[in-house]
Amino acid sequence: MKHFISMKQLTNDTIFHLIETAELCKSLDVKIPNQLFSANLFFEPSTRTKMSFTVAERRLGLEMLDFHTETSSLKKGESLYDTVKTLESIGANIAIIRHESDDWMTELDTGINIPIINAGAGKAEHPTQCMLDLMTIYQEFGRFIGLNIGIVGDIKHSRVAKSNAYALHNLGANVFLCSPPGYEDHTLGFPCITIDEAVENLDVLMLLRIQHERHQRELKTEGYLEYFGLTKEREGRMKEQAIILHPAPINRGIEIDSDLVECGRSRIFKQMSNGVYMRMAIIVHMLTEWGIINGNFIKKCETISG
Amino acid sequence: MKHFISMKQLTNDTIFHLIETAELCKSLDVKIPNQLFSANLFFEPSTRTKMSFTVAERRLGLEMLDFHTETSSLKKGESLYDTVKTLESIGANIAIIRHESDDWMTELDTGINIPIINAGAGKAEHPTQCMLDLMTIYQEFGRFIGLNIGIVGDIKHSRVAKSNAYALHNLGANVFLCSPPGYEDHTLGFPCITIDEAVENLDVLMLLRIQHERHQRELKTEGYLEYFGLTKEREGRMKEQAIILHPAPINRGIEIDSDLVECGRSRIFKQMSNGVYMRMAIIVHMLTEWGIINGNFIKKCETISG
Amino acid sequence: MKHFISMKQLTNDTIFHLIETAELCKSLDVKIPNQLFSANLFFEPSTRTKMSFTVAERRLGLEMLDFHTETSSLKKGESLYDTVKTLESIGANIAIIRHESDDWMTELDTGINIPIINAGAGKAEHPTQCMLDLMTIYQEFGRFIGLNIGIVGDIKHSRVAKSNAYALHNLGANVFLCSPPGYEDHTLGFPCITIDEAVENLDVLMLLRIQHERHQRELKTEGYLEYFGLTKEREGRMKEQAIILHPAPINRGIEIDSDLVECGRSRIFKQMSNGVYMRMAIIVHMLTEWGIINGNFIKKCETISG
Repeated sequence: MKHFISMKQLTNDTIFHLIETAELCKSLDVKIPNQLFSANLFFEPSTRTKMSFTVAERRLGLEMLDFHTETSSLKKGESLYDTVKTLESIGANIAIIRHESDDWMTELDTGINIPIINAGAGKAEHPTQCMLDLMTIYQEFGRFIGLNIGIVGDIKHSRVAKSNAYALHNLGANVFLCSPPGYEDHTLGFPCITIDEAVENLDVLMLLRIQHERHQRELKTEGYLEYFGLTKEREGRMKEQAIILHPAPINRGIEIDSDLVECGRSRIFKQMSNGVYMRMAIIVHMLTEWGIINGNFIKKCETISG
Repeated sequence: MKHFISMKQLTNDTIFHLIETAELCKSLDVKIPNQLFSANLFFEPSTRTKMSFTVAERRLGLEMLDFHTETSSLKKGESLYDTVKTLESIGANIAIIRHESDDWMTELDTGINIPIINAGAGKAEHPTQCMLDLMTIYQEFGRFIGLNIGIVGDIKHSRVAKSNAYALHNLGANVFLCSPPGYEDHTLGFPCITIDEAVENLDVLMLLRIQHERHQRELKTEGYLEYFGLTKEREGRMKEQAIILHPAPINRGIEIDSDLVECGRSRIFKQMSNGVYMRMAIIVHMLTEWGIINGNFIKKCETISG
Repeated sequence: MKHFISMKQLTNDTIFHLIETAELCKSLDVKIPNQLFSANLFFEPSTRTKMSFTVAERRLGLEMLDFHTETSSLKKGESLYDTVKTLESIGANIAIIRHESDDWMTELDTGINIPIINAGAGKAEHPTQCMLDLMTIYQEFGRFIGLNIGIVGDIKHSRVAKSNAYALHNLGANVFLCSPPGYEDHTLGFPCITIDEAVENLDVLMLLRIQHERHQRELKTEGYLEYFGLTKEREGRMKEQAIILHPAPINRGIEIDSDLVECGRSRIFKQMSNGVYMRMAIIVHMLTEWGIINGNFIKKCETISG
């Protein structure tokens, strides 16, 4: 794999390999012996993903080049390609990029000689978020085949929804969509259900954040929770083993009742913890694919720990 | 101690223990053996405190998660609680927080499972600044009992004043307040003196910065130095062993004549140096209290060095 | 040398010594054994220089204090002197400064007790950029004497031009200037040529960025490439061994045809790679001059590697 851009590039085998590697990164002390540099370029606000990558990198022993878009030469009109090529030239071994454009990666397709990981592309894809969601679901159920999984909320503006719907379907889950009027994405081609059907039938309720910043008109949030969100009453009707996911940040009291954020079936903060291990796994995978670190690297860590 | 929030939580014994630990951090190479992460969240501008914590953390061997409020999910409306819980979830072992609210910590009182250090709370408290001031005074006089200490300037808007007045009084010092009209804080209950009484009678002259950014109306600074500040003439009337403190940043030529900033009795830059060691001590103290590092940690460093 | 401020301080011997040290930093693993801190203060936007210093510092094992001008006490009116003195007080062993003023360093001339490296001073000087340019030219030709080197573009607003013109002349190169009307700097005293004379006679074509942000009136870029820039047609007329330099960021299609940025004779991205090694050399040089690290430091690295 050249760059880690889209879930469409990943076979199911690769997905299971990454989940396994992430579990190893959780249980072992996985440090890369040589001094490598990761350039982190976040052109959109981020807390979780950016900090998660930072922890992942430092746990692996990578140096982090924290590129600040506001105080960089982007202010002088420099292109994304020239920025990334510059970071490669000064010694970055890998780049992590989030950008508001859906297809920023096409500009980088030729000429860049370091692996790139997509940390969020406009409304298009967010594959590392998808991978940590998959890890969290797999930890819970040990399988994807036959699970009923609903993606609930502002699907139209969500890159998380697109990555997850595609990957979960391919892994054998039954994917359902549930959005308020105007927030559907009919191009995805999965059955649509109501929030009340969702809570009663799903194993995984994957809530989405309302992406206010991507809306053309401001959404009226009044009544949203009652009509489309996860109220306490609805949570009470969920299947016994069913879990709640949310990529966060959460609009408390809108998509979900604030009291449910840390309820027994919420895996919201566990998703974040898993995110660090999954990003370690993805970084290790890409550095291995490019021959920057040895393919036996993780095995060696196992032997030492074991 | 759950979180390091207010000087009111600290017994005099704890204060002396922290000063002693800070002196050890100054003289020994104190490195925590395991990889720990500190999340630094500064919601207000800071040079000294933020950089001081950074040096303290790196000297201890801690990894630093530099949370940028301007490019974070706060922009998407995320709450302080969710932000800190997120950082805990992705691996932060401790959080350092500065925020413009006086009582931001109440939101974090339940649910957060890592120690929090208050690096400045609105106009309310700034306990790590207070602790480095105490360290600097103790280095000079070897005691607090009976010292005449004046807090001089914009007391009304100063969190430093409140933390220091409380702690110094409890340690047995005689605390005096000296502010221009309109900048008093009568709730503190200490005797008020004029700047001319102050310079002639005090052992420690603790100047404060005029907190322009917290004023509702702009202060006329013209004449301020002459009427309320430390001029060279006034410095000439100070007691022989008396010292000058200032938490900085300094408004040169307003609170203090610019030529006095580095004069013989100024400890202003020494305070900053002490700040690093004191913050190391406070971090070590909190990590020890929470059982994150071993209670004998500093003793071991002593044995190795000794 | 007290501070690394201007090319005018450097003898030719020192220049050659720095180039040699930079080549060692490229081929050896050069790590400073003790924990030192570098304070990086960039008051103007920067990608290359800032990130280049970061990589240089981390390769040397230095800790980096990343001073953010936007969230610092500069917002509270703190002076540059007080900011740098603060960073010295909390443990910085060296400071790297870029500032929009031409002569910010005069404020720091007395009172600061750590070495300072100029990472860009207004329109005046950019000595570390000059040193990496010299390294790149020397790698190519093995000499400076007799080389025909043209500085081409917005010379008036360029600190790079001033540093380079001075140093190259002193090293024995024949320096030529080539700017559009209104962008000349007649005080430099070197012969002026047209872009067409330049491409046919020069060994090194040193293009400059149009410094839009320093212009009083907006430049019309239409026609710029055709009349004053490096088109493909002009590149075709360059001498066989001639090379192209550019300090970047590049205004593609204005100073240079976009297709030429990575052409065979472009050393633009090589300059950036060299920049890391040169900055390592300059840091090592300054730390050695100040007695902060041992003079034999690099030699020891050689012995270990060799």
